[in-house]
Amino acid sequence: MKPTHIEHIGIAVKSLEEAIPYYEKVLGLECYNIEEVADQKVKTAFFRVGQTKIELLESTDPEGTIAKFIEKKGEGVHHIAFAVDNVEGALADCEAAGVRLIDKAPRGGAEGLSIAFLHPKSTMGVLTEFCEDKNKK
Amino acid sequence: MKPTHIEHIGIAVKSLEEAIPYYEKVLGLECYNIEEVADQKVKTAFFRVGQTKIELLESTDPEGTIAKFIEKKGEGVHHIAFAVDNVEGALADCEAAGVRLIDKAPRGGAEGLSIAFLHPKSTMGVLTEFCEDKNKK
Repeated sequence: MKPTHIEHIGIAVKSLEEAIPYYEKVLGLECYNIEEVADQKVKTAFFRVGQTKIELLESTDPEGTIAKFIEKKGEGVHHIAFAVDNVEGALADCEAAGVRLIDKAPRGGAEGLSIAFLHPKSTMGVLTEFCEDKNKK
Repeated sequence: MKPTHIEHIGIAVKSLEEAIPYYEKVLGLECYNIEEVADQKVKTAFFRVGQTKIELLESTDPEGTIAKFIEKKGEGVHHIAFAVDNVEGALADCEAAGVRLIDKAPRGGAEGLSIAFLHPKSTMGVLTEFCEDKNKK
């Protein structure tokens, strides 16, 4: 495995409505997409900065993962996503190295990517995602 | 202000010795530099992934910022650094927008960059750094 770049940084926020103006007006980034990912119980807002996207995550459910994360740790960086050529291969490499997986197989994520998560217990606290853009192939 | 890319992601770890093998052997990134930043009481290890660096941070002092962060929140993402053309200008924009600054003026950071931090209370929980590479000019 050799990730090519940081695909995105996922940031848990209480409210997109409050967070978007900071990213747009203060940091000067443009929100180019807002998307709800129903099965993850989140509404996401995307900004591009070089090769990387900032993905703001607002929970749509008080019992959702992002709501629980904010309750426990406060708002802030939730996960880091590495762009890889092959999510299945990356998962196999991790499993062989004894890394605990959240997803044993790739699933569909925001923006039509194929994604999978590693468990932060195996990655020194960093919830880590792999993303593969099959549209580009 | 318009950041050009994510310059680095700072990750607090208990031990570089334990963390580096995961980044090298599992993720396939190469540690190209280890540097101690005495005034920040940290030892850092750097990896490149596309335009972005991963900066692992180990505290050299039990009273240091990184040690306190880990005590409170556990290991994980500590800060996000945006590459900007002009740190002073970026700070002025933030101050004008009412964002709380940790550094009122740029100071020297790892790898010879000119850096400054914004306070996470003003940035929805994300400790945010600006970096300017004066060597490139």
